Order: sequence, then structure tokens, then C-alpha cells
Amino acid sequence: MDAERIWALLMAVRTKQPLVHNITNFVVMNNSANALLALGASPAMVHALDEVEDFVALSQALVVNIGTLYSEQIAACKLAASRAQAAGVPWILDPVGVGATPYRRAAASALARLRPNVIRGNGSEILTLAQQTQARQGRGVDSLQGSDAAVEAARTLAVETGAVVAVTGVVDYVTDGARLVEIHNGHPLMTRVTGLGCSATAIIGAFLAVEGDAFAATVAGLAVLGVAGEIAAERSPGPGTLQVALLDALYALEEATFIRRVRFNVAG
Amino acid sequence: MDAERIWALLMAVRTKQPLVHNITNFVVMNNSANALLALGASPAMVHALDEVEDFVALSQALVVNIGTLYSEQIAACKLAASRAQAAGVPWILDPVGVGATPYRRAAASALARLRPNVIRGNGSEILTLAQQTQARQGRGVDSLQGSDAAVEAARTLAVETGAVVAVTGVVDYVTDGARLVEIHNGHPLMTRVTGLGCSATAIIGAFLAVEGDAFAATVAGLAVLGVAGEIAAERSPGPGTLQVALLDALYALEEATFIRRVRFNVAG
Amino acid sequence: MDAERIWALLMAVRTKQPLVHNITNFVVMNNSANALLALGASPAMVHALDEVEDFVALSQALVVNIGTLYSEQIAACKLAASRAQAAGVPWILDPVGVGATPYRRAAASALARLRPNVIRGNGSEILTLAQQTQARQGRGVDSLQGSDAAVEAARTLAVETGAVVAVTGVVDYVTDGARLVEIHNGHPLMTRVTGLGCSATAIIGAFLAVEGDAFAATVAGLAVLGVAGEIAAERSPGPGTLQVALLDALYALEEATFIRRVRFNVAG
Repeated sequence: MDAERIWALLMAVRTKQPLVHNITNFVVMNNSANALLALGASPAMVHALDEVEDFVALSQALVVNIGTLYSEQIAACKLAASRAQAAGVPWILDPVGVGATPYRRAAASALARLRPNVIRGNGSEILTLAQQTQARQGRGVDSLQGSDAAVEAARTLAVETGAVVAVTGVVDYVTDGARLVEIHNGHPLMTRVTGLGCSATAIIGAFLAVEGDAFAATVAGLAVLGVAGEIAAERSPGPGTLQVALLDALYALEEATFIRRVRFNVAG
Repeated sequence: MDAERIWALLMAVRTKQPLVHNITNFVVMNNSANALLALGASPAMVHALDEVEDFVALSQALVVNIGTLYSEQIAACKLAASRAQAAGVPWILDPVGVGATPYRRAAASALARLRPNVIRGNGSEILTLAQQTQARQGRGVDSLQGSDAAVEAARTLAVETGAVVAVTGVVDYVTDGARLVEIHNGHPLMTRVTGLGCSATAIIGAFLAVEGDAFAATVAGLAVLGVAGEIAAERSPGPGTLQVALLDALYALEEATFIRRVRFNVAG
Repeated sequence: MDAERIWALLMAVRTKQPLVHNITNFVVMNNSANALLALGASPAMVHALDEVEDFVALSQALVVNIGTLYSEQIAACKLAASRAQAAGVPWILDPVGVGATPYRRAAASALARLRPNVIRGNGSEILTLAQQTQARQGRGVDSLQGSDAAVEAARTLAVETGAVVAVTGVVDYVTDGARLVEIHNGHPLMTRVTGLGCSATAIIGAFLAVEGDAFAATVAGLAVLGVAGEIAAERSPGPGTLQVALLDALYALEEATFIRRVRFNVAG
């Protein structure tokens, strides 16, 4: 992985405009769709039990996010994930707030067993999902655990599920159980905008649609969002403007700026 | 139709603040409500089976949008549309992504038979709805077909359903089967913001609430959104800003600016 | 109550970052979450019947908003409110559009009997909820009644339910049946952005999480939103910018500015 390869993947997204099927939460549907459009992908938010199997078969990637889960949506996620797996459509799981309730832990664990290509969460979420502990690891949907505290859990989860696992936070970590990459972009103000973790998941979905190596796709998605986020934050007096400026920055990101700003390294 | 008549209709919306009942998708609920408020209308987003019939009877127009359809919502749309028809409340159908799945085709076709006053879609959607083809005309919710390719299909659909049909794209077309008007406003950046087609549908709904001639109301809605969109796009470095600036432009639109910018013509 | 005490409560929200559990409508989920994050709280939007009881027990406050109610959500609201009451978690009810339909009146009345700590609505909503009249008091979700017309109804409702009642409008009123405070901040442009009433409710929820006196928490929440709203409106050419600038203003609000701008008085 180098910065030029990531840029080439972003160019592939912009050129191919892959159809990314999202089964996601009600808080971020608009933002995730706009992040994917700004990136260059073609988003669709489709969650009805009656059509998710048909729809995922038309798509180049699937994003499953349990943020505002309910029983019918869990069933739709399972159907879509199984069909994606059967049809060779790559998919990514976002176990939002998995530590908060037994219901959420059960749903996330069941989905993690359906062989996602990637799992992305914050430190608390990845620790909970890896440990299947009964302890309350999370507090709502925000993380009490730094991403660094979850690196070993991420490696374990990657080995157990076969997925690439991303832990996002001040530093983002990506591991497939063997390799580990750290990404140092982003900005603290991003934590004051709801759903940017969900946007990260959706954007990784777009890269999965154009890159068969899920590890590379995940690093690329987080690097692009991190760079766009820090550009946007530098221009923003607060989180309202950041949300808007982030979409502008994703849309207008240029190669020279990206290459100059991106900071990642192989860590283990 | 001339520009002054469209402006008079916009003044009627601003003055009467009609209540526009929306049964719409989860991606755009916030944006559609804000577009209607910026225009001067009073939006309500009400979709429960238990109250849609009561609510539509209080309203001056109904907007039905299947973007994130599910079985209970389809039932609510049918109930509301039937009651609107019985009560003389004009209504508009937006068959979002109708080409994508059999489920979506069946729902959109059933609703199109309930005598909407207007149907608005992109080229792919209008082609699919007109032809009831089994072929996959759409790809997700974005259009693969230019609006011009769907003009004949729009005429056919208008004749079959009795609705005014609008096909939006680089050029917008409005037909009632006999008349055809082309509208040349708008900006390419608008396709990078999710749900502006849904906003077009909602805005036409507001014009239907103040103008009994559905053809004139549809031309007016698309002209006003197109002008506001191009004003906003000219000020926007990307789609994030465009979404915000569009609401400002709808709110602040002035007569002289509108008259100078609007470009439409009778085409057939 | 004085301005310094309100400021101290805002500092408590920023420091403690309380977890605020929202069962709210689909139109404003994103905005309410962002308003709470900008304020300094930690929002969670959780509405599944299977987990609301577990989740509210982890939370420092609960916000219940019926804007896009449906049968399963009403059940979830009742479960969560009962559990909040039992666990000593303060909660606030927002009876959005209660006057519009019998279904909405029944749901709001049932929830109002579950001993909310605070009820917030516009003039039409508080009049309807207080009078349980069969007449159509509201028109959609916007208010036809000024907040001043509902002050006596608010006192009655406060006595009947034991809740602090807030009526928001050009002037905001807060009463516990005996005391009455008027707040004179805010800006007319705020009525052109969807869901700022819902944001008010969510923000009061955050103050309830750090202040046991529900009357003080309600005055504080409305004063902070009103000051932030007028700062934002002064910078905004229209409602699109206002929505963004409001989040920036909540985030960046400083003590001197707040003390200088806030205008409230004991009225009866």
C-alpha cells in the first residue's frame, strides 16, 4: 500500500460509480448517501425484507449498519448478507453501539458470523464484539475506549471471523489478523458530528466495490475520509459547518493534496 | 404559461402556506420538510396506517414517495391516496427506483392506478413505469437514461393514468399526453446531493395545493426548484454547500431574479 | 434562576457529557443527535421494543417525541417511559402535532399520564393536550396558536400531570403550575427550519440529565437554544445556513456572549 495506490482506488470509484446497497440506521441515511455521492459512488438505501435479496444482487457492495436496529431490519440484514455472500458481493458490518444491550450484542454477533469482508467499529464496539463479554463495554454509541486499547481485540476478531477489522478513533487501525496498518488522519471535531463512523463504513463499502483486496479497500476508505475530514475541520468553526464542508472536501479532493496529507504506516 | 404566472403561484404558496402531507422515504424526510418550509409551505411527514386517512383530509396536497418502501408503508400510501382522491386533495407520486426490483415495480404500478394528479421520476423510472417491462431499466435510484429518452414513455404514461407526467434530468419535461413543456434550469452538481428529485416532487406538491391545473403546478414547481438550484450551485464548491444554499435560495428567491433566469418552452 | 446558574448548567453538560436516550421522529433524528453533540451531550437514538428498557436504564435522561409515531413506537415509548420513571431517569415528552388526529391525541394523552418530568410543545399542542378537546386545534405540526394563548392551558396541564410545561413560540413560557418564566430569545427564521422544536426538547433532556430541578433545567435548555438560535440567525441569509450555524453556535457558545444576550424574567 502506498498513497498512489489509494488514489488510484479513489479514481476507480469516481469512474465506475459503483452501486452501494446500504441497510443502515435512520439517523445517518441522508449523510451516508451524501457521503457516497460526494465520493463518486451511487448509493441506495434499501431495507425491505421483500426486496433486499433482489437488490443486493444488483449491487457492487453491501453496507450493513445496526444503529437503529429492529427485528424486521435484523432479518433483512441477515437475508442480504447471506445473498451477498452467495453472489460474491463484498459486504461490511458496522456493529453500532453493540455493547449497550443484550439485543444489540446478539444481533451483531449473528451478523459477524455471516462472513463479512470487513467489520468497522470504535474501540468499545470492537472490544465487545471480540470478547462477547457480558460487561457493558459501551456507553450509548460513543466510545469510552480508545482505538489503541482495541487493537489486540481486533486481531482476534479478524482471525475468528475471517474479516478485515477496522478500529477507528484518534488513530485508525486496520488488521486482517496478521497485517496491521495505522492511519493518522482525521480531526477531533469529527467526533461532534453524528454518524461519521457510519460514513466511514459506507465509504469503505464503496472501495470494496472496486477493489477485491478488502484490506487495501479498508485502508483506502479510512485514509480518504480522514484526509477529507481534516481539510473540512480546518475550515469549520463548529460541527455544523464540518458536516457540510466534509461533503465538499470529499467531492473536490485532489491528488496532490491527498498525497501530501495522508499519513499511514505499517505497524505490525 | 409564462414566467409571471409561475411567480404568482409561488406568491400563492408563500401567502397561503398550504399544509402538504408527505408519505416519503427516510433518506429525505428532513430535506423535503426543509425544502417545503423554505418555499413557504407547511410540511407534515405522517405515515402511520392509523392516521394517514385523517391527516390527508386536513391537507391541501399529498406527496407519496416509495424510496424506502415497506409493506405497511405501501398500505398507508394506498389508503392516503384513495382518501385524497375521494376528498379532492391533489396528490403526486414519486416512483423512486421503480426499475430495481419486482417488489418496487408492483408497488409503483398499483399506486399509479390510483389516479395521481402528477407522477414525477427520472428517465429510467418513467420508462419502467410506462413500459411495465421486466427488464432492469434502473440501477439503484440514479438514472441511466437521460430524460429525453423517456419523453414518449411519459406521454404514454400520462394517457394511461390520466396524470401529468414529469421527467426530470438535464432537461425537465412535463406532459399531460397532449402538451409538452421543456424546462432548462438546474445544474449538474444537483445530481450529487441525495434526494433533490424527491424535493422536486414535494415542491410540485406545494404548487398543486394552490393551483388546480396540475400541468401548470408541475411546470411551476420544477422551474422554481431549477432556478433556485442553479443559483445555489453557482455559489457552492461542492454538494455539501449546495444542499444548504438551495434552501437559502428557495427562501430568498426574488421576482426579478426568477424572471431573468427561468428558461422553459412549449415543445410539442 | 439567573444567567450565571444557567451557564453553570451548560458547563455541567459539557463536562459530564450525559447519555441522552431519544425515541424520536424520523425527520429530526439526525438534527437532534447533532444538536446534543454540539451542546456537549452524548446522544443515542434507540427505539426497538426489544431494547428500550435496557437502554433507558443506562441513560441519564430520556426524550420521547411522537412526530412520526406508529403503533410499535408508541409501545416502545410507553415501556421506556415507565422504566425511566421506575429507575429515576428524568424524561421529557414532545407531543408533536397532537391536535391533528385522534390517533395522535390518544397516544400523547396516554404518555402524558406516565408522569413525564417535562412536556414541551407549541401553543396549539399545549392547548390540545390540556383541553383534550375534540376540536382541531393544530394544523399539521406548525402552530396556529401563539405561545401566549396557551399559558393558562400550560398551568392547567402542569397541575394535572405534575410535569413542568414549556410552551415555545415568539416568547417561550415555562411553568410548573405555580411559577412562570418567560424567555425572550430566539429568532423568527427558526420557524423555517424543520424540527427546531424537537431540538429544544432534546436539549432540555440534556439539562434534565445534569439538574434535578426540572423547572431550572427547562428554562436553561430553552435559554441556551434561544441564544444560539439568534446568533445563528443573524449570520444566515436563509434557513439552510441557519440549521448549520445553529450547531456551530451551540458548540462555540461562550459565557460572556450568553450572559449579555439571554433575556428571561419571572412572570407570575
